[in-house]
Order: sequence, then structure tokens, then C-alpha cells
Amino acid sequence: MTALETLIEALKRLPGVGQKSAQRMAYHLLQHDRAAMPRLAEALMAAGEHIRHCERCHTFSETPICAVCADPERDARLLCVVETPADQAALERTGSYRGYYFVLLGRLSPLDGIGTGRIGAAELLARAAEDGVEEVILATSFTAEGEATAHVLAEALRVRGVKSTRLARGVPVGSELEYVDLGTIAHALSDRR
Amino acid sequence: MTALETLIEALKRLPGVGQKSAQRMAYHLLQHDRAAMPRLAEALMAAGEHIRHCERCHTFSETPICAVCADPERDARLLCVVETPADQAALERTGSYRGYYFVLLGRLSPLDGIGTGRIGAAELLARAAEDGVEEVILATSFTAEGEATAHVLAEALRVRGVKSTRLARGVPVGSELEYVDLGTIAHALSDRR
Repeated sequence: MTALETLIEALKRLPGVGQKSAQRMAYHLLQHDRAAMPRLAEALMAAGEHIRHCERCHTFSETPICAVCADPERDARLLCVVETPADQAALERTGSYRGYYFVLLGRLSPLDGIGTGRIGAAELLARAAEDGVEEVILATSFTAEGEATAHVLAEALRVRGVKSTRLARGVPVGSELEYVDLGTIAHALSDRR
Repeated sequence: MTALETLIEALKRLPGVGQKSAQRMAYHLLQHDRAAMPRLAEALMAAGEHIRHCERCHTFSETPICAVCADPERDARLLCVVETPADQAALERTGSYRGYYFVLLGRLSPLDGIGTGRIGAAELLARAAEDGVEEVILATSFTAEGEATAHVLAEALRVRGVKSTRLARGVPVGSELEYVDLGTIAHALSDRR
């Protein structure tokens, strides 16, 4: 393989990038933005080398304990469970949550062999049993697997006497009712306030 | 900036990749495909280091003269002018052209300060004047700038007594006439065979 073919193959490993996009990226970099190539290479190496998982919440972190877990100002009564670091980042960007997190790094999917061991359920239960945790917010996805994960975790927490809640389901901000799917409308109706 | 933020910023330099895609790529690599990170980093470094331009046709090449220009079996009577190495690669993939190429690495765009000097027009004219070249095929884009480039080059070639042709314009393969734009249909009509 030539260096160009190798580059195109490597770019195809990026999610959402097929043969055509990878070619376009490679040609663009080579012709118009050579400076971006060593910069991206170094960023990839540095990220691969330095980014590990927070020992406490399992999100991505360059330090053993991430910035959120290390912040004593946050509300220790709340623990929010998410599937991925990306979900956690989305919640943080809302600016409306001040508790701590626990990142599952996956969701239950028995067919793919992903059981409670793979999503760190035992660590979560130990974390939730710590002094001061009053409520575990289960913010897994509203997909079949995310719902199943939330259900299993809620049961395990209930048995241990820990209160758990789920994010509200309802009509997304900015949407016209006519175009919202019926399941969502039904939930929004039954959860009306 | 953290290593994660630096990686996301570097990924945003790729064409067609915005903040959301860059985040998704970074999270995907870190969580699911760490092995791809050093591989892509090395491919970027190797490509940046080894890929230069062919001295003869200006396409990307790891050798001073590219494989096409170095191939004595090709038809030296034909010289095909394209805007980019990607265009050349597309023509090669058709398997229906056996001549040589000249890659402009751009197109005339006076408003952006891209004149004949920047697209290697002088080198092209010298190349076209070589023994054996009987026809220059102007395969620049069918955009305003590509057409202007073809027009200027055709004039310069005509003055020097070199025959030039343009790719045929017409209805794309697989399209229904109803949905083809009118300019294309008009061209297909006037160029009917």
C-alpha cells in the first residue's frame, strides 16, 4: 500500500467516514492543510497516551480522579448514571446538574454478551451506598437497551434501599406536537404536571 | 486545553467534520478503537513526510515521477488536464483512459488571486509542446471556474497549434430525463450523436 492508501484506510476507521469521505479528507489535507496532519497525529498520540478512566466515575480523565469527582463543591446527595462520557459531557453542558456522575461505559445487552459485570454495576452499587448519596438519577438512553439497563439498576438499588429516579420523558423543546412520535406524546400526557 | 479538547479541535480540521462529529469521533476512538489512534497518527505522519508532487504531472506521488508518468506503455499522444489528484484518481478508476495527465492543483479564480501562474499553466504548455502530444483533453470541472480555466487553456493551446478537446457534457448514466437540469439537457441535445 502507498502512503496515500494507508492514510485513506486509517481515516476510514473513524466513525461515519467511508471510502469517499476518507479520500476527500486525505486529498484535502495533502493539498490544502498539511499543517493539520502533524497536529492531528500528535493529538491522537497524546490522547491515546494520557486519557484514561477516572477511578471514581469511569469517565475519560487525564488524572486518576476527574475534575468533576475532585470538585468538593458539587452536591454529594445526587449521583447521575449515564452510558458514555459523551452523555456526561452533554449533561454538563446543560449547566443544570450539580451532582456527581457514574459512567457505565456501555449498556446491558445480553445478546452481545454485555452483562452487569461489563457496565460496572457492582462499582455503581458500592458508590451509591456511600454516605451522603440520597438519589441516583438513571440517565441511560430511552432505547430498549437503555431502558433495560435502567430497570435492572433501579431494581438493584431498590433492594439496597437507595432511591432512584429516571429522566423525564416528554415532548422535546422546540418541537411541534404534530411531528412528535405517538409514544412520546403518550408519555408526555401521563407525566403531565 | 485537555488532551481530549485538543483531539476534538484537531479532528475539526478535517473537511466536513464539525464540533459534533469531532466529539463523536474522539469518544468513539477512546472508548471503542484505541488501536486506530496510533495507526492513524502514523499514517498522517508518513503521508505528510513522503507524499510530494510528481515533477512531471504534479499529482501526489511518493517518488519524484509518479507511477503513471513513469509508465512507458501509456498513450503519449493524449494528455488529460484535471484540477486535482482526486479528479485524476476518478478518471483512472474508470479504466477507459490510457494517456498521461497534468494536474493543475487548482482552477483559475481571479477573485481569489489564483491566476495562470498558480495552476502551472506554463508547465502545462511546455508539457503539451513535447514531441508526441497530439491532443490535450481539458477535464476541468463543469463549474463557472472550471469552464473559465478550460477556456483560457484552450486558447493558449490553440495559439501554439495544439489541439484541445473538452469532456462531453450530457445526461448522466442512470438518470431519468425528467429530473436532469435543463442546462444539461440542452447540452445533451446540441451534442447529440
